[in-house]
Amino acid sequence: MSRLTLALDIMGGDHGPHIIFPAALTALQQTPHLHFIFCGPLALMSLWLSKQQPDIQARITLSDCPQAVAMDEAPAHALRHKKNSSMRRILDLVHNNEADACVSGGNTGALLSMAYYVLKTLPGIDRPALITLVPTINNGKVYFLDLGANINSDSEVLFQYAVMGSVLAEHIANIKQPKVALLNVGSEEIKGNDQVKQTAKLLTDSKNINYIGYVEGNDIFSQKADVIVTDGFVGNIAVKSWEGLVNFVIQEVKKASQHNWLSKIVAKIAMPLFRGIYLRMKPDQYNGASLIGLRGIVVKSHGNASSEAFLYAIREAIQQVEMQVPDKIKDKIEAVLMERH
Amino acid sequence: MSRLTLALDIMGGDHGPHIIFPAALTALQQTPHLHFIFCGPLALMSLWLSKQQPDIQARITLSDCPQAVAMDEAPAHALRHKKNSSMRRILDLVHNNEADACVSGGNTGALLSMAYYVLKTLPGIDRPALITLVPTINNGKVYFLDLGANINSDSEVLFQYAVMGSVLAEHIANIKQPKVALLNVGSEEIKGNDQVKQTAKLLTDSKNINYIGYVEGNDIFSQKADVIVTDGFVGNIAVKSWEGLVNFVIQEVKKASQHNWLSKIVAKIAMPLFRGIYLRMKPDQYNGASLIGLRGIVVKSHGNASSEAFLYAIREAIQQVEMQVPDKIKDKIEAVLMERH
Repeated sequence: MSRLTLALDIMGGDHGPHIIFPAALTALQQTPHLHFIFCGPLALMSLWLSKQQPDIQARITLSDCPQAVAMDEAPAHALRHKKNSSMRRILDLVHNNEADACVSGGNTGALLSMAYYVLKTLPGIDRPALITLVPTINNGKVYFLDLGANINSDSEVLFQYAVMGSVLAEHIANIKQPKVALLNVGSEEIKGNDQVKQTAKLLTDSKNINYIGYVEGNDIFSQKADVIVTDGFVGNIAVKSWEGLVNFVIQEVKKASQHNWLSKIVAKIAMPLFRGIYLRMKPDQYNGASLIGLRGIVVKSHGNASSEAFLYAIREAIQQVEMQVPDKIKDKIEAVLMERH
Repeated sequence: MSRLTLALDIMGGDHGPHIIFPAALTALQQTPHLHFIFCGPLALMSLWLSKQQPDIQARITLSDCPQAVAMDEAPAHALRHKKNSSMRRILDLVHNNEADACVSGGNTGALLSMAYYVLKTLPGIDRPALITLVPTINNGKVYFLDLGANINSDSEVLFQYAVMGSVLAEHIANIKQPKVALLNVGSEEIKGNDQVKQTAKLLTDSKNINYIGYVEGNDIFSQKADVIVTDGFVGNIAVKSWEGLVNFVIQEVKKASQHNWLSKIVAKIAMPLFRGIYLRMKPDQYNGASLIGLRGIVVKSHGNASSEAFLYAIREAIQQVEMQVPDKIKDKIEAVLMERH
């Protein structure tokens, strides 16, 4: 297989190189044709690299970036003043075809702004979207978008989300004719606001999308659909509220476990089980998220991700390169637009 | 204390009289000045009433309603064709001052339409809202609205939600100067859509509301605010998605508990603990919801509510009568509108 090169933002995320280096090492061991371009401060990266085996050293290139984007930095500030940052560099490398894809665990807003600015959207796509995999009952998974890349999305943009989600479900999750649903306040046709109703019409009219209708909030985890589309305002609040709810449940379980010696023992034994569920229920943290619709592959690992979660993000980037996701989205949107005329 | 009369929709909810009669009986035993008007089919109600003690019989009036609104009936159909339904009757009784408040566990959409039509909104209030109490960490609670009474709400309507939520927090939950927050995709001032930003401006300018700014999805359960305001589209999807998530977690726990004999025992012991958390996490089911902003008090018990949850809804109605919630909302909105001029 031909060489596959990923650019990594070494300074992104709360734990930076501390979790990224081990993840990168594991990825290199698992994927023989993989190469990395590490973007970050040269001294720090050189020191780590000098301790690695020669065959590993040969598969990592270092790109010195004196700047870093802070986790709480305003996206506009980062876009204007951080042209030599590790986050900006990984995007430049993808744009210049020096890397096939990039991964960052940094400031989501800044990454969105920079990626949109540097890579631009694919033809036929107005706005990029942030997408993640949400676990469902029976070990299922559903692609959920937009997580907040855009907070104002008209029906045309929501329709494009459906196309993009459909491509990921088909080519990454290997689902034939993935079922696409719109998130709404009811399942009847008359329900919802104008934006949702207009999108439903566009989706119903398209033979290229397997549109199954509306789903409600309680259907998200029920495996009714393979792709669920909503605007970034709703998507962002929903996903963050799940994180809040899971944290709350964990706290309640801890509190309940203090009642007596029996509940203490039960809680002690039950807790690892919870942590597993807990991790799965913070989908963007566990699975990372992808920025799709751009002329390039950008995978976002959660800022607070573990080394394991960062490795997951690297694997996701590899899969998207191998499945040529941007080309597939371009083809699908072209087919859909052709069909309309 | 003077007589307090509640009209009950005997046919509302999945379980109807089966759970409503026992709840009403308990409420009468607990509240000496309480009287009920039962609205439903006369034969069924008479049979039950004939078996009660004379002092109970004296405190219940029966109002024969040959029609019932189905749980899946279209609101417009119910509004037009169910003028002799138990749901319509309880609202008519409140409108005619024959009852101080009413409680129904029936079809939410139909109840909303009928209540809006029969009772009308208070002066200064454009739209009614559906509000519930959501549990938070440290045994806290937050008033959360709108749950979906309106799916298109401009900044003026969201502002009115803040006023109404504030009144409930102050007079029902006894919180002095309740902290009011707007649900948004970020906590910084520049975040959000126009609707949210304009509402923030209205709230910041008002001295009558203790506005604390934006909260994100993960803050809902963290006790940062006493009242959280969002539009009905987001609110409906959020609350329903929590129900879906809690169902999913329960399923995962059940599945994990099948691994081996130890996990089976742990799950068996841990399950009651979960059910308690589970019930609390279905806030509208546990706490019911109130339809506020109307010229009358309407409490909505969950369709699938237990007798205990229906009793909770009755108590909520009693509290709102005693605290004269509609008058308090009217006074507060007047003060706010005065302040603007």
